[in-house]
Amino acid sequence: MKRKVYLDDLPLERAIERYFAHLQEIGTLNPGPPELIPAEEALNRVTALPVYARNSSPHYHASAMDGFVVHSTSTYGASESTPVQLKVGEETVLVDTGDPVPAGFDAVIMIEDIHYVQPDLIEIIHPATPWQHVRAVGEDIIATEMIVPANHQVRPVDIGAFLAGGVNDIYVHPCPRVALLPTGTELVQPGSELLPGDIVEFNSRIFGAMAKQWGAVALRRDITADDFDSLKTVISSAVDEADIVIVNAGSSAGSEDYTADVIQSLGKVLVHGIATKPGKPVILGEIKGKPVIGVPGYPVSAYLVMELFVKPLVYRKLGLHPPDIKKVEATVSRKLVSPMGVEEFVRVKLGQVSDKIIATPVSRGAGILMSLVRADGMIRVPRLSEGYNGGDIALVELFRPLEEIKDTTVIIGSHDITLDVLANFLRLKYPSSSLSSAHVGSLGGLSAIKRGESHCAGIHLLDEETGDYNTTYVKKLLPGRDVVLVNLVYREQGLILAAGNPKNIRTLEDLAGNGISFVNRQRGSGTRILLDYHLSELGINDDNIHGYEHEEYTHMAVAAAVKAGAADAGLGIRAAAQALGLEFIGIAEERYDLCIPVEFMETPYIQRLLEVISLTEFKEEVVKLGGYDLRDCGKVMWHSNKARENLLLV
Amino acid sequence: MKRKVYLDDLPLERAIERYFAHLQEIGTLNPGPPELIPAEEALNRVTALPVYARNSSPHYHASAMDGFVVHSTSTYGASESTPVQLKVGEETVLVDTGDPVPAGFDAVIMIEDIHYVQPDLIEIIHPATPWQHVRAVGEDIIATEMIVPANHQVRPVDIGAFLAGGVNDIYVHPCPRVALLPTGTELVQPGSELLPGDIVEFNSRIFGAMAKQWGAVALRRDITADDFDSLKTVISSAVDEADIVIVNAGSSAGSEDYTADVIQSLGKVLVHGIATKPGKPVILGEIKGKPVIGVPGYPVSAYLVMELFVKPLVYRKLGLHPPDIKKVEATVSRKLVSPMGVEEFVRVKLGQVSDKIIATPVSRGAGILMSLVRADGMIRVPRLSEGYNGGDIALVELFRPLEEIKDTTVIIGSHDITLDVLANFLRLKYPSSSLSSAHVGSLGGLSAIKRGESHCAGIHLLDEETGDYNTTYVKKLLPGRDVVLVNLVYREQGLILAAGNPKNIRTLEDLAGNGISFVNRQRGSGTRILLDYHLSELGINDDNIHGYEHEEYTHMAVAAAVKAGAADAGLGIRAAAQALGLEFIGIAEERYDLCIPVEFMETPYIQRLLEVISLTEFKEEVVKLGGYDLRDCGKVMWHSNKARENLLLV
Repeated sequence: MKRKVYLDDLPLERAIERYFAHLQEIGTLNPGPPELIPAEEALNRVTALPVYARNSSPHYHASAMDGFVVHSTSTYGASESTPVQLKVGEETVLVDTGDPVPAGFDAVIMIEDIHYVQPDLIEIIHPATPWQHVRAVGEDIIATEMIVPANHQVRPVDIGAFLAGGVNDIYVHPCPRVALLPTGTELVQPGSELLPGDIVEFNSRIFGAMAKQWGAVALRRDITADDFDSLKTVISSAVDEADIVIVNAGSSAGSEDYTADVIQSLGKVLVHGIATKPGKPVILGEIKGKPVIGVPGYPVSAYLVMELFVKPLVYRKLGLHPPDIKKVEATVSRKLVSPMGVEEFVRVKLGQVSDKIIATPVSRGAGILMSLVRADGMIRVPRLSEGYNGGDIALVELFRPLEEIKDTTVIIGSHDITLDVLANFLRLKYPSSSLSSAHVGSLGGLSAIKRGESHCAGIHLLDEETGDYNTTYVKKLLPGRDVVLVNLVYREQGLILAAGNPKNIRTLEDLAGNGISFVNRQRGSGTRILLDYHLSELGINDDNIHGYEHEEYTHMAVAAAVKAGAADAGLGIRAAAQALGLEFIGIAEERYDLCIPVEFMETPYIQRLLEVISLTEFKEEVVKLGGYDLRDCGKVMWHSNKARENLLLV
Repeated sequence: MKRKVYLDDLPLERAIERYFAHLQEIGTLNPGPPELIPAEEALNRVTALPVYARNSSPHYHASAMDGFVVHSTSTYGASESTPVQLKVGEETVLVDTGDPVPAGFDAVIMIEDIHYVQPDLIEIIHPATPWQHVRAVGEDIIATEMIVPANHQVRPVDIGAFLAGGVNDIYVHPCPRVALLPTGTELVQPGSELLPGDIVEFNSRIFGAMAKQWGAVALRRDITADDFDSLKTVISSAVDEADIVIVNAGSSAGSEDYTADVIQSLGKVLVHGIATKPGKPVILGEIKGKPVIGVPGYPVSAYLVMELFVKPLVYRKLGLHPPDIKKVEATVSRKLVSPMGVEEFVRVKLGQVSDKIIATPVSRGAGILMSLVRADGMIRVPRLSEGYNGGDIALVELFRPLEEIKDTTVIIGSHDITLDVLANFLRLKYPSSSLSSAHVGSLGGLSAIKRGESHCAGIHLLDEETGDYNTTYVKKLLPGRDVVLVNLVYREQGLILAAGNPKNIRTLEDLAGNGISFVNRQRGSGTRILLDYHLSELGINDDNIHGYEHEEYTHMAVAAAVKAGAADAGLGIRAAAQALGLEFIGIAEERYDLCIPVEFMETPYIQRLLEVISLTEFKEEVVKLGGYDLRDCGKVMWHSNKARENLLLV
């Protein structure tokens, strides 16, 4: 077997062009043979043929009012001075709305407009015009008229019109069947007990839900081991059963990547490798006239390949054009470097701060699924660009509606678990709103405020001189900016240690030497400043702490590193240790405040936040996390404008 | 039983306020008790609780590359001049991507960067930094972190993150159950044989599809007759089974409208009658803490009431905010008069002509379901407005995406059945495009061209002096406008008569007197001009034609009137007679052209049209309709600019 070792680097647009041209040529992009289904069940299906009415609606001349039917000629000349009298049962008949207009009559007079002379004799004082208050046959739908054309996605009102027009069954395009083949010896089904090296097979579930959203039917298959022959068998049978086959993964060129070879042995590989990041190791193939696509294993790569290649395939087979992706122009918050020669898809968080939409990149790793969960959109950095400078405008493809993004409170700064609780209560109380929090440390949070990228910052910055929290830094870093500090929590910082404290660590001094490995927080975080403050107080040199340069961005990441044995100790909050069942030795209580530019104080972004943190339910939930004190929660601790501070404090 | 005879006229916003305040007060707007479902099946469901990760992902330190794991300290000092050698199996181990990093190691060196000295000895020339090429525990998801908050609608990537985080079941809000109770003695199920007075019960199918689209579960019940006690029984039982109850109809104040009385007898009517058009006879009630809504019978009223009241109810019970309705500012094409004191919802067709979005009202009757099927959007004319003048800007709520509307060819003018065939082929060939045709007669079509409201007009205008078609009128009505006439079809006009021609009508002369009733086309239509021309040729006075003032807007409407016995004869095209199985006596062949402003000739709007009418399949389909001759189809018949005409004709 000839093995292909290097991947191509085909530009995305060339890959799309080459692949779809081939599929077009062999007729694969056309919908399958029409399917006859009940009109009632046709919601969101796509018509394969135009739908023509079989009956008219109404199918008889119907009275549009409660009243009397008449023949218009018998009412001519009626006026107040020359009323016309009509014999009920002969010259006129009482009808309700919807009743048929009997033969020989052509108009209806409303019940309000007649006068009873006798029970069987009415009098009118206005003539009726022919067809007044009559819903004539076909007023709504005329038999044989086209209700909707072919390639029309059926809406609720269409279903009504089909039934009104006597069409009880319609021809629709079949839903394309997408076979999903998870492959990999390391994969296990969700719910299995996990051993080191096991990876939960969740990609096919993402693909299945995507396919369903697009209008396809997903056929998910069991996991296939990395073995050429097994793979060949399952791909062959999937090609027979489905319209589109997705093989995940084995799409790269490693020692156990058989997908390309199998596709080549059964059919044809048209593209192997594209110049995108993530998404590079894709295989675009065809077997027996069916598209077979090798999708990379990392979830972000896989998601992109599904969006870029499988989505348009599904829509084409449905006779539809994929819905346009909504886009917005946003200001890139900081320098975003991207390699030349590669089209990069950078996930970003978005928020409207003052009058600008700000885009802040989230984690760029292809393996970070949470970067997709957390992102509000995606920037495509073109192949021949090196990226953006902070302040540049970039086009962002939206993952959620712009209105929702505009309704999002943006908090950038230090990480605290309380922010998750806050996000949750905010959403419960205001379903249209949300909280977007980015964890860049306290100093990073103040920089974001300075650059106008956020509505508030979470900070806990110890002034080593005075022992005071936050005010010194705010004065120094935001000179002339009118801001308010509102307390969120006091929290306990300390050593996070393995359960049972096997290395018997008691103090910060124990970290130096002794073969103890440490996991640190990133430069600029309040926790890092706290550590450095204590180390210098104790006269301990960084170099003596093994792992000082191993940086994590959140308390939970530090706790997780300790939990996994990657480090013996870290500095962080009690809640993080408690969440993972770790040992904790308290070192200091620190004040965690929200720094809020005064111009946002009265906006819903901040007012809702302040409302939520004042709720008893919120406070109870936070206390449960452990290590928190809420004695000043919601209190204004400081205001850069002294006069106003006093007002606010009242 | 006290009967309420008159409806209120409550402004819409007051009705919403009153009703939702009441429902809020009694707790009806909250979601039901959470439901535990498999995460895999949670697409589009809404979380009732925040979802916290149970496992970290990865749950072990995983190699991110194919390569050798090492302890970083053992690589310090490696360089080209001082390479470091490591013993395979002791100081280093070969791993594949995804393999666990064994205890005692903390970095991976890529396979490309090592050199084999012996099979069990490798050499490296760069030191490894701690944790390089290692996916540390929790790199993607850390156990206990919040994956999504409550009130979050689940997307495909969320499902992946739940499973990756070890969460196999999640709590979601239950889908609200909406009971749909069709009521009315006149209603019959779709598919029944129709007798005069029978109305097909299709409203509940529209409601069911709407409810499904919003995320609710529809419980459709059988038809209930208009009878107080039966109604009481079904409403009672629906209240016990569902979260929201829809009674359709009996919501007005007529003699058989029991809905309000029944609701009042079981619970409470909060609003009966609102100041909207359509939608006025709505009942907003509550029984045992459940919303019970009486929805009017006319489909357009019913649709509106569902949108205005039921949709927000469903979303509230799902913990979601209803998605914002997309809106666009459009130029109202002609005067739109709307009564003061009533908020009117006017359905409009939209199209982009040059740089303006043009809104043209369609039929305004509450009974015209096709007005919703055909509409692209809706204008809300405020209660205290009398409407719009032609050229005014109005805000339009969109029924389909703006991009699709911008991709629509707008044809306004005379009606011809061929346009349906054209619309269909256009859609088949270009799934993103569509044809919007409005039928206002030939002269109306030229006016629309003049006002810049359409891309082309379908016209068949006989010059009574010369016997020529179209050019005379175009010259007269569009002076100075550079337009092209492209032939679509020749078609046969004649008398449309009942099957078997029972009144033995042979010529136009037979229409005068003799007790023959006629159905006419509207003033300005080419067919009306043709009739008037022939009548004057024959010296027949309009007054002698009974029904001359009974106007219809399309050939099919004329044929339908004859079919239903509302008239003995009408003038129209053979295809209309043939479609309904009627008798036809030919009178004239006429030329039906497309009048196209030259500035649109090269746009996709027109180019696609010209492409489609040149297709053999299109022509074959048209010929099948009967009475058409396509000898000049697609040919330029005339050009206002003589020099260019010759060019085009070559």
